[in-house]
Amino acid sequence: MISNPLFHLKQYRIILGSGSPRRRELLKTIWSDFTVSSLNADEDFFERDTPEEICEKLAVKKSDAYTGSFENNELLITADTIVYLNGEVLNKPANSEQAIMMLQKISGRTHSVYTGVCIRTMNRTIIFHKLSNVTFAEISAQEAAYYIESCKPFDKAGGYGIQDWIGMAKIENIQGCYYNVMGLPVQRLYDELKEL
Amino acid sequence: MISNPLFHLKQYRIILGSGSPRRRELLKTIWSDFTVSSLNADEDFFERDTPEEICEKLAVKKSDAYTGSFENNELLITADTIVYLNGEVLNKPANSEQAIMMLQKISGRTHSVYTGVCIRTMNRTIIFHKLSNVTFAEISAQEAAYYIESCKPFDKAGGYGIQDWIGMAKIENIQGCYYNVMGLPVQRLYDELKEL
Repeated sequence: MISNPLFHLKQYRIILGSGSPRRRELLKTIWSDFTVSSLNADEDFFERDTPEEICEKLAVKKSDAYTGSFENNELLITADTIVYLNGEVLNKPANSEQAIMMLQKISGRTHSVYTGVCIRTMNRTIIFHKLSNVTFAEISAQEAAYYIESCKPFDKAGGYGIQDWIGMAKIENIQGCYYNVMGLPVQRLYDELKEL
Repeated sequence: MISNPLFHLKQYRIILGSGSPRRRELLKTIWSDFTVSSLNADEDFFERDTPEEICEKLAVKKSDAYTGSFENNELLITADTIVYLNGEVLNKPANSEQAIMMLQKISGRTHSVYTGVCIRTMNRTIIFHKLSNVTFAEISAQEAAYYIESCKPFDKAGGYGIQDWIGMAKIENIQGCYYNVMGLPVQRLYDELKEL
């Protein structure tokens, strides 16, 4: 049997510091031996920061919220995904009205999705981000209402999930990494973990 | 309850003419009421044809293999996906050696994935294709061997699945439609079905 190319990770106790079930599923595909700890940090950011800075700083903030020591070879992975359009960060919609407003904003346009990632061990901190651009077709009022009622996208930045009905039916084009839009830039993360 | 935006499809008996479990899953997301019929046609093509022509003609060939009548409002969907690199079509690998050779070819390069689709009813035939470009990082011999052993990609054009380990760990960039690379350009199909 050929070993997983990330076999050297066996030496670490890996912790995914995220409550997102999507990040859990994605990480599992490249390395299954990890525990999950939902690290909560406020998601405030400076308006003058660039989207690259915002997503990286929020990933670091979540990492800083970890209260364990790193003395037993812990390796902590945290991430933050932001949806960015015309200089504005679209957060998670609090209710249907906000979700409808977000879908109206991204309808017929290209927006950017940035995921910042922080990998931390006792001796090292690696921070990076990945950008993907996503182009939606025009979303009708009926389509927005149907999506929000059937998928309830209230835990998703920008009010949509690329793996949901709306991602399949209404995304015309993506440029970058699909899994980055889901919440974790798996290819880049794999590369970084391979070099550890 | 808000109805599915494709509600008018209720008037048809929809048949997906494909044995691919991935196409079945993708179609189900936009419309769940269909039956599956695995239509087999030879996958021969003319070398002088363009990739656009090849994938569309193969989708039509599968449609032509349907032996039922269209008299009871049947609507038949067939599709064919080809992987194209440097003027060559990469088919499904017959064994591990062929799969390794294909992964060596796509390693560190950008290739094109074309899916041709044919929608047929008693009165109409709609044919289209969608192109997506996929860029792989360099794939090492160990990575290729690990992937082939763990995922056995022998039913996949080009020897890989974008939703598999290798698609997550080794695809740097995609430009186009992710679901097209999986085997069905869902957004474009949704648009065509909506206009029916």
